[in-house]
Amino acid sequence: MSSLPQRGAGLPEDAPLAAVRRGPLLESVHRGRIAVCDPRGDVLDAVGDTEAYVYARSSAKPCQALPLVLSGAADDFGLTDEELAVACASHNAERPHLAAVRSLLEKAGLAEDYLQNGAHPPLYAPEAAKLARGGEKPRAIHGNCSGKHAGMLAVCAHERYATGDYRDPGHPLQRRVLALLCEVCGLDEDEVLISGDNCGVPAFALPLRSLATGFARISTGEGLSDQLAGAALRIRDAMLDHPFLVAGTERLDTELMEATALLVKSGAEAVLAVGSPEGWGMALKVSDGAGRAVRPAALAALLGRGVEVPFGDLEVRGLHGEVVGAIEPLLDAG
Amino acid sequence: MSSLPQRGAGLPEDAPLAAVRRGPLLESVHRGRIAVCDPRGDVLDAVGDTEAYVYARSSAKPCQALPLVLSGAADDFGLTDEELAVACASHNAERPHLAAVRSLLEKAGLAEDYLQNGAHPPLYAPEAAKLARGGEKPRAIHGNCSGKHAGMLAVCAHERYATGDYRDPGHPLQRRVLALLCEVCGLDEDEVLISGDNCGVPAFALPLRSLATGFARISTGEGLSDQLAGAALRIRDAMLDHPFLVAGTERLDTELMEATALLVKSGAEAVLAVGSPEGWGMALKVSDGAGRAVRPAALAALLGRGVEVPFGDLEVRGLHGEVVGAIEPLLDAG
Repeated sequence: MSSLPQRGAGLPEDAPLAAVRRGPLLESVHRGRIAVCDPRGDVLDAVGDTEAYVYARSSAKPCQALPLVLSGAADDFGLTDEELAVACASHNAERPHLAAVRSLLEKAGLAEDYLQNGAHPPLYAPEAAKLARGGEKPRAIHGNCSGKHAGMLAVCAHERYATGDYRDPGHPLQRRVLALLCEVCGLDEDEVLISGDNCGVPAFALPLRSLATGFARISTGEGLSDQLAGAALRIRDAMLDHPFLVAGTERLDTELMEATALLVKSGAEAVLAVGSPEGWGMALKVSDGAGRAVRPAALAALLGRGVEVPFGDLEVRGLHGEVVGAIEPLLDAG
Repeated sequence: MSSLPQRGAGLPEDAPLAAVRRGPLLESVHRGRIAVCDPRGDVLDAVGDTEAYVYARSSAKPCQALPLVLSGAADDFGLTDEELAVACASHNAERPHLAAVRSLLEKAGLAEDYLQNGAHPPLYAPEAAKLARGGEKPRAIHGNCSGKHAGMLAVCAHERYATGDYRDPGHPLQRRVLALLCEVCGLDEDEVLISGDNCGVPAFALPLRSLATGFARISTGEGLSDQLAGAALRIRDAMLDHPFLVAGTERLDTELMEATALLVKSGAEAVLAVGSPEGWGMALKVSDGAGRAVRPAALAALLGRGVEVPFGDLEVRGLHGEVVGAIEPLLDAG
């Protein structure tokens, strides 16, 4: 058993992953850590300290959706793969996302106001602007976590759990999520550190290596019991078949799942978890939490695993449209 | 003469300055560098490499405003201290900022459409929302650099320089700015690296120590020729007397200048320059460019210089208003 991290115990070792260049000079630099593991938990590739903890944030969503399948709720309510995909989403609140969350709730016999994920404007700016123009206030359903919460509520409805306090870490649904996350990532429950996520459910911190291991297992089924492997692969296939529903327009998760065979789920504060059908998982954390560094760092790391995705336009432009610099990977894609 | 930085020459040494804590664990960490210098350029305090270069970005604005005083334009056009302050501003586009930019332009006999700083929505979100509600598109005057550009244009009008190409690094106004920046910061022109700023005028990269030295000089007049000292102190006093015009509501520069005797000017990508009447200047760069780290890092660094400003509410809240963590200085304010 690894020991839980302490305040002041020192910061984990990391390395430069990406930088913003202006003219010939690197203006800002983003450091980070990367773990690539096989389903047994062996580290295949590493940047920085892979044992140090990371908050999985929304990268835990595929695990948080597992009770939906394992409880029988998905079958008994006749959920579609679209509804399973949105239950794993950090979505843009575009029309297809809202439609999938609504139908998931309806099938579980629940109204929109059961959602307790908190309201924020749609992640996708044009949808946020549309809402504002119409004088409509963002509701919980527009929150990027509304699919996850709808899925949690559907399990509660199926299992006759209370729906008023489903966010509580002691609620039977959340106890099941924790147990499953531990099984997927190969940890004991006392090795996972639990805090509050911004949407009000538990946020899980675990070693970076364990998150990578979990994604190696979810994307292959290897290292899991038959029943859990079946549920994981059903979640995986729902996400792979509906990458738009997992994130949306101009989002890295969607782009990568459309361009490759990889399972991809990002999380707040610049976390990215990736699972390959070839039997490895990758977990990446930009130490400073900057979202802008995730794409170049991840594409360079994936190139190192033989997965080639075009870097596209990395240029940074000024207010006159002129190129003033670029955001570039620093990681040696070797 | 120090040598200009090269690509791939290695990244400057830095140290943790601030972190975002979630529950008991540091979720994200911001590293950075700090130089505190006297007007002679001697380093009094340091975090990380103080010789490594930094883009001053908008921290250069007090230097960019010097020709306004030295050319005689400020006197001949009868500019007020409010107009000088906004010429040094990265402003919020609140009503007083727009009024000061307009009157500066009017006194120089120039129309608003001479401004070439590029349009972006007001930095202050309520002003941006007001503009959007009214169906009005952001214009150059709403850009945070419009005061700087109005000041540059006023010099052009006074000196009968061309106004169409005033952003060009070879334009006589920009040549004067560079020469003055070098004199203030104690550098030769070939020691300053010039790239494009987002608003289209030159952006200056220089050693962090030199930026701190420059602010030690601007805030005291020491180390400068009598004529330059007079202009610098006039700029300083205009900023200190009108801190709101230099930034605006809920902005660190304004808050610090209202609460202390310090001259304060921030820049994009998490740069902050401070000058003390007690004879020192401080330059701070958060290595990853994260604005959220500047306040806690700067307040801790200032505490180390004996300047006590309340840290206030550093808590991070979730979507239900509950505290999920905090943004905290990591710098030992010793």
